[in-house]
Order: sequence, then structure tokens, then C-alpha cells
Amino acid sequence: MADILHRIGIKAPIQNVYQALTTNAGLAGWWTTDTKGEGDQVGSILEFRFGAGGFDMKVKELVAPTRVVWEVTDGPAEWLPTMISFDLREEGEYIILIFKHMNWQEPVEFMHHCSTKWAIFLMSLKSLLETGEGSPNPVDVKIDNWN
Amino acid sequence: MADILHRIGIKAPIQNVYQALTTNAGLAGWWTTDTKGEGDQVGSILEFRFGAGGFDMKVKELVAPTRVVWEVTDGPAEWLPTMISFDLREEGEYIILIFKHMNWQEPVEFMHHCSTKWAIFLMSLKSLLETGEGSPNPVDVKIDNWN
Repeated sequence: MADILHRIGIKAPIQNVYQALTTNAGLAGWWTTDTKGEGDQVGSILEFRFGAGGFDMKVKELVAPTRVVWEVTDGPAEWLPTMISFDLREEGEYIILIFKHMNWQEPVEFMHHCSTKWAIFLMSLKSLLETGEGSPNPVDVKIDNWN
Repeated sequence: MADILHRIGIKAPIQNVYQALTTNAGLAGWWTTDTKGEGDQVGSILEFRFGAGGFDMKVKELVAPTRVVWEVTDGPAEWLPTMISFDLREEGEYIILIFKHMNWQEPVEFMHHCSTKWAIFLMSLKSLLETGEGSPNPVDVKIDNWN
């Protein structure tokens, strides 16, 4: 099993970061504009779509304003079954966000791609909260021939 | 043990990508301007410096123009002992770069930071080769309170 791990620091109130992870307006502002579901309801299925495909996530755990956990319930075979968590805490003028995309069966090449792409999307989240403008799909930063 | 994994695609000749990984001018253009050593010589120690500290890497393996492997010989305790590899191949109009920073003893919080930061530096490498301008330390993109 293998995990994708990231850490960013965001200069914004922790409530704003938590909302960007638990509301459609927030999620659509940094990950993909095509977002459906109830991110603030445990058990809800979030539907994230990206041109060719997408991911369904069940909201597994919410601890406002410090923790969000999703279980991947549909998407590319390599994402099944994996879990995604966001943990937030205040540290000086920053909200520190610890990101984990856990339990990949194998460190396949697609995992390498997703690791880089998650970093790009987390920087989009940081930008959304600090400047008011993120870069969600379809205006996301492209990293390779897989997009 | 845990690994940081990334994948980017670069629209540039493979020889240019290999040179950016094996010459001081190349390395200084995307990672840190304070780079010393002989990146094209197996056994040479590369010295990368970043304000407060830095890393020493022994060039372990070179297969021009497709593979570069470094062994970390000095730096933060969490980086000892780890290995870094870059594998290149052509795929359509891209050079695909597979990056691994391997053999972290534990998935500590600093590893999360380094994972995100490597993605940022690899995007700096991509930019250097595609546009002529990277963002090496000290003008690198900052991600959190650790820089």
C-alpha cells in the first residue's frame, strides 16, 4: 500500500478553509467546477467530474473546522479503494493543511501523476482562499499528457 | 519506508531535460541557484544550498539521456538515507519524467512538505525547459510556513 502526502499553509481563517472543503461553491472553486453533493453531510456522495471521467466520494468523517475524510466509491480502478483526508490546524499566521490520499494498492505510474496533480490542486485551494481565485478543472494547470 | 512520487511531461528535447538534471547551469535554473558539483560524473558530490541549509547528493547512476540517480549523503536527518531518481522517456510530443524520492524511514510531516515542494520544483523544471525561465530557490513558489 502507498500514500500520496502533501502539506500546504494557507493565510485565511480556518472556517474559510473548512468551507472550501465542504461546500460545492468551495470545492468548485479549486478542484473542479462540476461538483455535486452535500460535502457537509456525513454519508453524502460527492460527485466530481472532469471532462472524460471523475470520482465519487462518500463523506466519511467531518470534524468542523479541522478534519474532512472521504472514501472513494467510484472512479478509476487505481483509486478503488482509497481514502482521502484533510487535516487543518492553526500555526502562527497560517492554517496548515495536511493532505493524504491513502491506500493505493500499488505505486503505479498513475499514482505518480495524481501526486503531482494533487499538489497543483492544493495550490489552487491556497490561491482561492488567499486571492479569491483558484484554478479548478477545466482551467487547471496542466502537468503532463494525462492532463 | 515511504516514497514521494511524481510525474510530469515536458515539451522539450530529451537531451535538454537530461542536461537540466546533470549540469550546474541546468540545476541552478529550476532547483536552487546555489548549486555546486559535477552532475555529469558518477561519484561526484552535488551541493545544493537553500538559505538556512541544504543537501549533498552523490551521483550514483547516470544513463544518458534517460536516467539520473542521486544518493543523499548530507542534509536534514529525515533525508538520511534516501535516494532520488529521475527517469525520462519520450511519449508523443512530451518527455515523461518519473520522479521518486525513496526510502523515507517514516511518513513524517516534513515528508508531506517535501512532496508538495518537489511538485513545485518539477513544475519549475518544466517551465525552464518550455519557456526558458524556471523558479529556483530563492525565487521559488512558497507553499507553507516551512517555505
